[in-house]
Amino acid sequence: MVAPPLEKETQNTNIMTGNINRIKDLFGIEYPIIQGGMVWNSGWKLASAVSKAGGLGLIGGGSMYPDVFREHVRQCKEATNKPFGVNIPLLYPNVEDLIQIVVDEGVKIVFTSAGSPSKYTAFLKEKGITVVHVVANKKFALKCQEVGVDAVVAEGFEAGGHNGLEENTTLTLIPYLRPQLSIPLIAAGGIGSGQAFAAAIALGADGVQIGSRFAATEESSSHQNFKDKIVSLIDGDTKLTMKRVVPVRMIKNKFFREIEQMEITGASREALKEHLGRGRAKKGMFEGDMDEGELEIGQVSATIDQILPVSEVMKNLVEDYQKTIKNLTSNQF
Amino acid sequence: MVAPPLEKETQNTNIMTGNINRIKDLFGIEYPIIQGGMVWNSGWKLASAVSKAGGLGLIGGGSMYPDVFREHVRQCKEATNKPFGVNIPLLYPNVEDLIQIVVDEGVKIVFTSAGSPSKYTAFLKEKGITVVHVVANKKFALKCQEVGVDAVVAEGFEAGGHNGLEENTTLTLIPYLRPQLSIPLIAAGGIGSGQAFAAAIALGADGVQIGSRFAATEESSSHQNFKDKIVSLIDGDTKLTMKRVVPVRMIKNKFFREIEQMEITGASREALKEHLGRGRAKKGMFEGDMDEGELEIGQVSATIDQILPVSEVMKNLVEDYQKTIKNLTSNQF
Repeated sequence: MVAPPLEKETQNTNIMTGNINRIKDLFGIEYPIIQGGMVWNSGWKLASAVSKAGGLGLIGGGSMYPDVFREHVRQCKEATNKPFGVNIPLLYPNVEDLIQIVVDEGVKIVFTSAGSPSKYTAFLKEKGITVVHVVANKKFALKCQEVGVDAVVAEGFEAGGHNGLEENTTLTLIPYLRPQLSIPLIAAGGIGSGQAFAAAIALGADGVQIGSRFAATEESSSHQNFKDKIVSLIDGDTKLTMKRVVPVRMIKNKFFREIEQMEITGASREALKEHLGRGRAKKGMFEGDMDEGELEIGQVSATIDQILPVSEVMKNLVEDYQKTIKNLTSNQF
Repeated sequence: MVAPPLEKETQNTNIMTGNINRIKDLFGIEYPIIQGGMVWNSGWKLASAVSKAGGLGLIGGGSMYPDVFREHVRQCKEATNKPFGVNIPLLYPNVEDLIQIVVDEGVKIVFTSAGSPSKYTAFLKEKGITVVHVVANKKFALKCQEVGVDAVVAEGFEAGGHNGLEENTTLTLIPYLRPQLSIPLIAAGGIGSGQAFAAAIALGADGVQIGSRFAATEESSSHQNFKDKIVSLIDGDTKLTMKRVVPVRMIKNKFFREIEQMEITGASREALKEHLGRGRAKKGMFEGDMDEGELEIGQVSATIDQILPVSEVMKNLVEDYQKTIKNLTSNQF
């Protein structure tokens, strides 16, 4: 494992602000903005659009059969020469197949999540692949570093979809992890604007992973009903639920309220799993059933009021980040 | 109601960063740092120390009988000529008495919380008192503005003690409220360092309210056992619980686990209230019973590893805030 070039300099400063060059250099990208590999949202169209705009697009392998996944990887390679990656949740039944496709197709960057970083990191690193793992607490962040992961995504409670049991928010998790890690740190959860992007770097992140804001883009592969729903949400319209099965942040729709009622009345883990069943996320986000589906989105959706092309989202993020830093310099004592 | 001096300028910028001058001018203080008026932690010693160091100290009226409260106000006036204020939770049974003491003793700044801002704002404003109200969602933030409150504290899910039902985190709440409000906005929840302070201003807050970091100071009136406990915590050691009675973030001690078990097995609201009983917070934070007491502290406690004098906490906050902004300027594209 080669240490990131600016590691030492960062560690020598006596205050733990992030260093965006570490993420730019690690992936060879222009802006330290990673598009989260969200299930049912992140096909080759979204990933390639983000990469073309100077960020790092990720194909979300978690909702794809191996053949579909291979097709998306191939399409993405055709659509752009810029670096892109894939996200593979390690609880996925076909994970071995996806990993093999990654190697066969020459994918250079893999984000793993929902599992132990010790399982595939060494294998992928041997193949010359850059490996990033998603964590939600200190224990797994340190484990990542120990097993040779190249960078860590630390995801807060406000994020959509699967989430950690500790319920650490991004604001408290990033400054907590920063002094513990020598590898680059990427903040995720609650980041949908240039202001939040700048805030994440202030907190000690070297880059950001953004999900919800990219789910509500023209290039996202999710159903139009889901995109329209996202832009209609206000604060309090999502909640982290199913904590006794696997914590997931979702929109408070009919399905959510059924689960909530079961939890209040002390339903067993088995009963909850049975009601969840299979294919709820697909039904909601991909097929557009806003009542029966599991609609995974982050709290930041409350601030998203327009479906935009990726190019515009990226432009806003970059410009508002720069303006925020400029405005901060006039906020000194 | 006189509009804050820099309101227009802030609104005219096309990006919603905070403006620290609005909070400095509103209270007549040197740094836009407010010490939260925490029950059982915030007596005159803590409040006056923060005010002397250039912030705004608040006496926490929520845990004081009227006579005790009057005594703390008088001691604080004697200890410092700098501005200070009080926090009055509006669910408190003796709230009328406390409000009268505020008027009698010439207190100039009142933070109200846990209730409707429409109840006392007009009365207090008539007496020339600056009124700030604590909220956790957009609905109450707009209500505050409507009834003439001078500034809003928006408190996120990561904060210790009483919390909102929406579970909005500070990172998502501040950028959500900023464009909706013309009055100054103070961020609370998860802020314990100069980095997080800078992040809050980047997100659109004009100042910060800090609780947990001041609970672990020499001047805090809480029991030594509680302070020692705070510095021992890691991530995941607090949780927002009792959501069906009133949501409170507390340390996962014996009392917490009893409540948690009752909730999992579907206990009624009444049974939970009965087990909570009265005086749990005092027993824990003031009397030092780490098993049976209700120990209210925020997630940011995971990053607090030293009990410090207030002067040092303030110095670190101010210096690290400045350093963070400086470091951000070298993180541009």
